[in-house]
Amino acid sequence: MTTQRTKLLEDPELRPFLPLLWVAWSDGDLEQDDLVALRSRVEAMPWLRPAARHALETWLAPDAPPSQREMRTLLDTIHKVSATLSPERRRDLAGLGAELADEGTRRALAELEDALGGGAASELFAHLATAEASRTREAPPKPTAPFDVSALGAWLDGDVKMVRDQARTFLADPEHRAYGLPVPEYRAKVAHWLADLAARGFGQRAYPGITSDEKDLNAFIATFETLAMGDLSLVIRFGVQFGLFGGSIFFLGTEAQRHKWLSQVASLDLPGCFAMSEVGHGSDVQSLETRATWDVVSRTFVLHTPAESARKDWVGGAAQHARMATVFAQLEADGEGHGIHAFLVPIRDAQGKLLEGVRAGDSGHKMGLNGVDNGRLWFDHVRVPEHALLGRFAWMNAEGHYESAIANPKKRFFTMLGTLVGGRISVATASVAAAKVGLAIAVRYASARRQFGPEDGVEMPLLDYPAHQRRLLPRLATTYVLSLAVARLRSNFGQRIRDDEAGDTRELEASAAALKALASWHAVETLRECRQACGGQGYLLVNRLPDLCADVEVFTTFEGDNTVLLQLVAKSLLTGFKKRFESTGVAGIARHLLSKARVAVTEKNLLAVRRTDPEHLRDRAFHLAAFKYREERLLETAAARLRKRLEANRDAHAAMLAVQEHLVALARAHADRLALQWFDESIADCSDAQLVPWLDRIGALHALTRLREEAAFFLAEGYFDAQKEHALRKETTALLGELRQGAVALVDAFGIPDACLAAPIAFMDPAHPRW
Amino acid sequence: MTTQRTKLLEDPELRPFLPLLWVAWSDGDLEQDDLVALRSRVEAMPWLRPAARHALETWLAPDAPPSQREMRTLLDTIHKVSATLSPERRRDLAGLGAELADEGTRRALAELEDALGGGAASELFAHLATAEASRTREAPPKPTAPFDVSALGAWLDGDVKMVRDQARTFLADPEHRAYGLPVPEYRAKVAHWLADLAARGFGQRAYPGITSDEKDLNAFIATFETLAMGDLSLVIRFGVQFGLFGGSIFFLGTEAQRHKWLSQVASLDLPGCFAMSEVGHGSDVQSLETRATWDVVSRTFVLHTPAESARKDWVGGAAQHARMATVFAQLEADGEGHGIHAFLVPIRDAQGKLLEGVRAGDSGHKMGLNGVDNGRLWFDHVRVPEHALLGRFAWMNAEGHYESAIANPKKRFFTMLGTLVGGRISVATASVAAAKVGLAIAVRYASARRQFGPEDGVEMPLLDYPAHQRRLLPRLATTYVLSLAVARLRSNFGQRIRDDEAGDTRELEASAAALKALASWHAVETLRECRQACGGQGYLLVNRLPDLCADVEVFTTFEGDNTVLLQLVAKSLLTGFKKRFESTGVAGIARHLLSKARVAVTEKNLLAVRRTDPEHLRDRAFHLAAFKYREERLLETAAARLRKRLEANRDAHAAMLAVQEHLVALARAHADRLALQWFDESIADCSDAQLVPWLDRIGALHALTRLREEAAFFLAEGYFDAQKEHALRKETTALLGELRQGAVALVDAFGIPDACLAAPIAFMDPAHPRW
Repeated sequence: MTTQRTKLLEDPELRPFLPLLWVAWSDGDLEQDDLVALRSRVEAMPWLRPAARHALETWLAPDAPPSQREMRTLLDTIHKVSATLSPERRRDLAGLGAELADEGTRRALAELEDALGGGAASELFAHLATAEASRTREAPPKPTAPFDVSALGAWLDGDVKMVRDQARTFLADPEHRAYGLPVPEYRAKVAHWLADLAARGFGQRAYPGITSDEKDLNAFIATFETLAMGDLSLVIRFGVQFGLFGGSIFFLGTEAQRHKWLSQVASLDLPGCFAMSEVGHGSDVQSLETRATWDVVSRTFVLHTPAESARKDWVGGAAQHARMATVFAQLEADGEGHGIHAFLVPIRDAQGKLLEGVRAGDSGHKMGLNGVDNGRLWFDHVRVPEHALLGRFAWMNAEGHYESAIANPKKRFFTMLGTLVGGRISVATASVAAAKVGLAIAVRYASARRQFGPEDGVEMPLLDYPAHQRRLLPRLATTYVLSLAVARLRSNFGQRIRDDEAGDTRELEASAAALKALASWHAVETLRECRQACGGQGYLLVNRLPDLCADVEVFTTFEGDNTVLLQLVAKSLLTGFKKRFESTGVAGIARHLLSKARVAVTEKNLLAVRRTDPEHLRDRAFHLAAFKYREERLLETAAARLRKRLEANRDAHAAMLAVQEHLVALARAHADRLALQWFDESIADCSDAQLVPWLDRIGALHALTRLREEAAFFLAEGYFDAQKEHALRKETTALLGELRQGAVALVDAFGIPDACLAAPIAFMDPAHPRW
Repeated sequence: MTTQRTKLLEDPELRPFLPLLWVAWSDGDLEQDDLVALRSRVEAMPWLRPAARHALETWLAPDAPPSQREMRTLLDTIHKVSATLSPERRRDLAGLGAELADEGTRRALAELEDALGGGAASELFAHLATAEASRTREAPPKPTAPFDVSALGAWLDGDVKMVRDQARTFLADPEHRAYGLPVPEYRAKVAHWLADLAARGFGQRAYPGITSDEKDLNAFIATFETLAMGDLSLVIRFGVQFGLFGGSIFFLGTEAQRHKWLSQVASLDLPGCFAMSEVGHGSDVQSLETRATWDVVSRTFVLHTPAESARKDWVGGAAQHARMATVFAQLEADGEGHGIHAFLVPIRDAQGKLLEGVRAGDSGHKMGLNGVDNGRLWFDHVRVPEHALLGRFAWMNAEGHYESAIANPKKRFFTMLGTLVGGRISVATASVAAAKVGLAIAVRYASARRQFGPEDGVEMPLLDYPAHQRRLLPRLATTYVLSLAVARLRSNFGQRIRDDEAGDTRELEASAAALKALASWHAVETLRECRQACGGQGYLLVNRLPDLCADVEVFTTFEGDNTVLLQLVAKSLLTGFKKRFESTGVAGIARHLLSKARVAVTEKNLLAVRRTDPEHLRDRAFHLAAFKYREERLLETAAARLRKRLEANRDAHAAMLAVQEHLVALARAHADRLALQWFDESIADCSDAQLVPWLDRIGALHALTRLREEAAFFLAEGYFDAQKEHALRKETTALLGELRQGAVALVDAFGIPDACLAAPIAFMDPAHPRW
């Protein structure tokens, strides 16, 4: 019978039914009853040709399950058939049947699947990918990447490829890596490296029009981002010197101040620091206590630390290296407070001796970033001249009175702080870079490290285990999405610098805050997962993951605590929401929108709610629509809840508190939507046909992972039904199996120099030296 | 009108309606239309007394919203009224109306709430707790705990209070804390501390019947657990010496071997180590490559490292301090392999010099636990005498042939490894202890640290922010749950030692594996959240959180990688499941169960699916039933999916792989259910009436948090509807507001000595020195 049965498979009429047969017997949730039912359904299909019907009946005989050999032939036939399709149509094995069928057959197929029951069928089909994945174990993957790695790398680098390659040259030197050093030696080494970077002219990119011919900060931030694949203490010192310290002069200083100081800053002849946070006030900058009191007689400011809570703290460079500080202080003049302003205050002489009235201390040993000399500063009635005030937005006039270009103090404060948005963008990019390094190490290790396996068989690479794929590959996908999203943010920032007059920067600030929070949390979680996925090896400093974990940890805190940032994002969204409807009047509008939204869902998604076909589930438009729906819903409901509270005479602060969790969720949903949309828009530019399917898979895996994480929301909203939630899981499994084949190539495309990747466990597999 | 209106509130008939009025105006989702509808509903209620009806109508006049002053009076009245209730009935403000009402009024109330629409009403009520929380800002909490902290502490310590207090005495010495030390100095310090512990006799507790009169290991593990609030390098060295090294002799040795070695081990006269993991095989112990070849002529074993992948690695104590190692190796005799056995192998002489044929190296600088000298070992044909084989389960007979008490090699292997379950239990307890320390630091800091606040008002403690409560308090609740669960595990282990003959230890092993994974992941996540919640302060080593994060990180890896452990748990559950139905035959049973389960849900939960009242949501029986349902469902479906695959001729390994994600989820669900059940059973023993409500809240917050995390499952299963999911969120908010009031007292009840808590940020608030 065996030969007969396998021979039947050659009938071209049977092709569309092959996957169905395979899952029915191998992966099925099928009982004998089901097979009987299935077979009688086949018998009752008049439009089936006799040969096909006979073949199906034979293969569905409940009392004659196919042998292992027959199953192998069946699977081989499926693969042969699928090879006749174009790569595009082939990629989705689960839909293979439909792909091969004509209209009539498709109807028959649908009826058969129906007979299996919706849930069972989708369950069965989704396992095909898993079966494929485990099949590769038997035939180990060849050491060739499934696409051109350098083409993907070049596309990712985009318009900053040259700048990145210059930074890579620095990273490719094994001398530029260190670990496990005592703090003083590490700090000295980082200072030495920083001088090297300055000598290479990397700092000059920070001040377009002053120290470089760059037209914006794109090249500077791309440099920062690329360096962030290496030592993170170095990259933070780099950012403090050229970005925060120099940036404060560039953005808050007058033309005269810019020209006076910035070339010294860029060359590192003037090492500086950025003294904003105080121990009593980190997030709440408006409440800083350091005072700068105007003495009209001598035309000087008196900088003073009035209490211990006002000491400047965590100031990178303050403990040892900085000679000047940008100090944020309450400007007081004419007996009146004018709010926070920035002052250039010399703190050490050329020999590194502290100046009179300035006291400095060390912030102490930290979890990570110990190559940065974070310090504390106290000022005891330190006098600085009038021009120490960074005077772009405010100054003391000839008569000795305070004047500002921005009359509203609150607006002035936010304008000044807004100029510092580059710091947040930089942290977002560095987060993504660090996640890339961690994933490169963990994925390469997982593809080489073997453990356990079938009885009496060879051991399996970790990356062939579905549980291991699930730890690493969704995070790899998200890293790609965020990488393209922050690149877009960087270029938006460049645009803003070029169109300096444009004015309203709130959108840029909100997107920077949102992506900074999203990317830094992602980096922290990804690196921890990579650490754990590498087991005991991941715990050793030599394998880089411990330092990466410890260093990025503070990315969630500095340049704005993530939770605080998300609340700012939510407020900005609410303001925008209000504006959208200002003309039509606020009253009643939220309620109107709510009902409208509900209707929209019911109508538009009546089909989508239940669609579970892979085509739909991988459709980027479906993903983005779902992300948008979530953001909009959370925005509308947050607005409604807030408005009610405000109308009921509760003060704004209490109202915001009452909906705080809601606001945080809203801001995250916004960040999610933004990242996905920018990713989608970016990959639409990719014209390389071999890369597109991989970028599509990446986007789909990222989106489905997030949708599954928020499945409770979508289920409760009726946006999904249970079948769909089930199908998302299955489709995710299929995507994991597919992406596993390109995983090493995908991390190699990040272009991390070997000396920088460094971890011995990333170089274990002699078969895959560098693809 | 104002005076009139507030006067109306004094009417006793109105009491049940007060909360409704308050939320209608202050927290409401109400539109004017709603108020109109509400009022006409009131008008149409014949059973309302005229006075009450008038009062309600007045208060619900859409065009006359109450002033802020009136709202304040209304809220004060509610509080006054609630004060007349017993504390038990008072705790749930949201249900206050129902609490105060008689049957008829309750009906009226229900009708009114109905008029608001289900969703809106539940939304409104849930905000009362938030309002309470923000109110405490205005009147800061008094420095008195809401319950007797020492009573709770004593209850938590239970039968090991004396042992714990002895360990606390050690921890209370500031000399027993260190951070930021170079590795050699840190190792020396830890070695010194370890000698101190041995001198205190703590090691002797590890060998009941040999070196102590203890009847089981309860006291030893409680010592370990308590010490884990202090330096974690010390606790790991302590565990390696007395638990792993000594434990291998205690559990795998003959009586003669126990008596020969254990007193030297307990006194630390013989420092040892435990050489199991090899660099090529960590999780897969069965595949270790180190060989112990029997030489029948000399009656010796020849220990040998045949390849670099066979080097022993990460062996605590091997780099420097250990003089003897328990080495796990493949026993070969008569030209045949007998599997993994343990051998006592001297590695250094009394002067610390390596013995001939033994090579040792350092594993290198690690992420944490750098006070432990982890090392590598290679053996070059090292001869050890016959009695080096730990001979409880296997030995060489007089004729020079291998003999074992357990004929089946697989069973022998698992029996030997099973005796080491104490290590996993210890890691679970240490995880909980570390989480307690982190939470104590973060909660105490959050209650003292103020930032932002209402305009022109005082700054608010971080812990009054709902977002901050949500970061810390659910984790505090889970820590309590796990603390009681691991205490139960510890005592089950003790029982097993006492009933040594009992035999089947699989249940204990499975619960140890499940809780080890659950607790170590919980500790890692909790400590990271604590770190982030403390902002920049949390990044400083002086505040302990960085070292805690880095040290516990490896708890997820050693003593069994968590992901691997969960798969073992799942396999054990499947075996049990199979047994349950073995008599009735396997075929068809899963399907039967599935349909039965579905029916059970539909019938039993028809009401529960929609119940959203606080009484139900806080009901421990509801929580446990939901946890059980999830576990059972995942077990049944996993069993069904596996069986189908096995019947379809796929090999077992491939079948397990195909459902790997499912198995991991099942094992986690099992661990969750076990922890909650043991917590429930433990608190049933608490007879202190003032503590019970707090333990109830803790259990409820933990359970609701987990249920919300798995809400997608319950929604998809139809176990919840959307309204219920919504209600879970509201009830969680209410619980957070309530637990916030006892948060500092709850962490103080852990009884962490000040010198051990150590972090300066834990001692910021002069008003709460130690409650």
